Amino acid sequence: MIKVSIDALGGDNGLNVTIPAGIDALHSFADLFIYFVGDKDIITKKLAKYNTAKLNNRFEIIHASEVVAMDDKPSIALRRKKDSSMRVAINLVKENAAAACVSAGNTGALMAISRFVLKTIRGIDRPAIMAKLPTHKGHTHMLDLGANVDSNAKDLLEFAVMGSVAVSETEDINKPTVGLLNIGEEEVKGNETIKQTAELLKHSSLNYYGFVEGDDIYKGTVDVVVCDGFEGNIALKASEGVVRLMSASIKESFTKNMFRKLLAVIALPALKDFKSKIDPGQYNGASLLGLKGVVIKSHGGAGIKEFWHAIAEARIEAKAQIADKIAGKVEQELQKSIHLTNGANNE
Amino acid sequence: MIKVSIDALGGDNGLNVTIPAGIDALHSFADLFIYFVGDKDIITKKLAKYNTAKLNNRFEIIHASEVVAMDDKPSIALRRKKDSSMRVAINLVKENAAAACVSAGNTGALMAISRFVLKTIRGIDRPAIMAKLPTHKGHTHMLDLGANVDSNAKDLLEFAVMGSVAVSETEDINKPTVGLLNIGEEEVKGNETIKQTAELLKHSSLNYYGFVEGDDIYKGTVDVVVCDGFEGNIALKASEGVVRLMSASIKESFTKNMFRKLLAVIALPALKDFKSKIDPGQYNGASLLGLKGVVIKSHGGAGIKEFWHAIAEARIEAKAQIADKIAGKVEQELQKSIHLTNGANNE
Repeated sequence: MIKVSIDALGGDNGLNVTIPAGIDALHSFADLFIYFVGDKDIITKKLAKYNTAKLNNRFEIIHASEVVAMDDKPSIALRRKKDSSMRVAINLVKENAAAACVSAGNTGALMAISRFVLKTIRGIDRPAIMAKLPTHKGHTHMLDLGANVDSNAKDLLEFAVMGSVAVSETEDINKPTVGLLNIGEEEVKGNETIKQTAELLKHSSLNYYGFVEGDDIYKGTVDVVVCDGFEGNIALKASEGVVRLMSASIKESFTKNMFRKLLAVIALPALKDFKSKIDPGQYNGASLLGLKGVVIKSHGGAGIKEFWHAIAEARIEAKAQIADKIAGKVEQELQKSIHLTNGANNE
Repeated sequence: MIKVSIDALGGDNGLNVTIPAGIDALHSFADLFIYFVGDKDIITKKLAKYNTAKLNNRFEIIHASEVVAMDDKPSIALRRKKDSSMRVAINLVKENAAAACVSAGNTGALMAISRFVLKTIRGIDRPAIMAKLPTHKGHTHMLDLGANVDSNAKDLLEFAVMGSVAVSETEDINKPTVGLLNIGEEEVKGNETIKQTAELLKHSSLNYYGFVEGDDIYKGTVDVVVCDGFEGNIALKASEGVVRLMSASIKESFTKNMFRKLLAVIALPALKDFKSKIDPGQYNGASLLGLKGVVIKSHGGAGIKEFWHAIAEARIEAKAQIADKIAGKVEQELQKSIHLTNGANNE
């Protein structure tokens, strides 16, 4: 049985999303067990609305008296809300009761509490956020997406190792290709950190592809795109922004007049079909890599289907024992590159 | 008369784009004069194919014996091809024969030659690349898009001043709002450089809005988005990549079966209408700001319509005497912030 703890009160939609998504996931996966964490009374009431007879008691409610708000400062969430649904859900992973935790709560708080409770893997300075992104070929993975700024070459090497292990273990790719995000200007091929990182990656045992540019992300040039969280976050949000702009423009052009509105109804299947290919929901569930345990961050505004995807991702990572696998590989890789990183970091 | 020099042989398509686009622009703007720069014989032959009778000799061919290839290293283009169409076109600006230059040639070479020939404005260390981007409200501007990496706070302040002046002079916006590109994670609001830059901007006379995130670019939150060239280039290319992915997916879903193919024909006006709103062609023509002269970079793969837009942009910036305006404002702004930048750069 794969046990996953869910921060049932996290996110913009709380129970209205986490409970039905959890029930759906239990129906989808016979090997799944869920701890719903939050106020016992209200969770019980909510669960009563669903037919859970066939689920063979594959879930349990764990009480937590507090909730981390979406705008709580991470430090406040960490120090003042020790009985929050988020904290208790993470505690279950720490105590080995659950193999993974899922939360749609605020990212900063989730990262801070996860680091404090679970600690980072030996050799990893800071965890990184990795997500799947759609490509012309299927999907790729990118990290870090905003947990770290000013990453040095050793940090970026760690991201590469973590991403590579996670992808090879969860996606059945033997040696995932790893690309380092850079810019295309000829004589200014990247900054110093990027050049140092490229050296480390060349000497690593990873399947290093070389530099990739912003548009390579969506071409699917590599399996893992590595970058500092500053660029990663900006690239991701810029992409989301332009996708929203395109969607709004399409919608607008199909509502211009009566004929077009009618046309939109007929064209709907084609437009839906297109959307399903780059459906953000399908890509919900970012991984906090580098922790001694599996933590999955769902979008705060996720709907039921989206949150289901985050639970599915937690189940896969828990099953693959990602955290242990990363720990093994990191030690091996960092040992090997110690003389290189020493050189790189002294500059 | 606004005189613009065109690197007629630059870009992937050379004369097949630059000549018809130039002719079209001469028809569009009665105050425009064009120098077509490149091999005299082949330009003459090409021009003979067009009816130029009504253009009142508003163009002239300037001979240049060499061409900068798209994959020439900037240093090679600069040192070994002193009679390239690109170089001669820029020379015309230096000699005040032309008020602006347009090239679709390679960016690195264009930047290197422009800096060498025209020099940078007093107080500006490195020029920056600025482009227009579509938004929900119309369009915005972003710089730097790849000319500079590892920019410090003073560099970013310079970009802000240059962008602000260029937009206020060419777009009739009195005090353009300026946003500093950052990430949204709570306790890690940006790196040290960003924090220092924010301080400088707060004390400047610019209309500083504050931090903006990646998705704010396309929301049109501010008139000018300022960032280091590393992030700018990655954000821009990631955006282009995801737009291409979306377009390919739409196309694919409209070709799945016979019915959908028929539907596509009917839906075409709506889809075209949508495309025109975020048409990249419309946004062709990036400005190299910070030089003692106006230089516009067109996409290498630009078509006739796209290159026409780059010429139109050159005309507007030449008319507004952007370079002189920037020079005046930079001196004033940098003088004021000297004590602040001294503090910021000494860290």
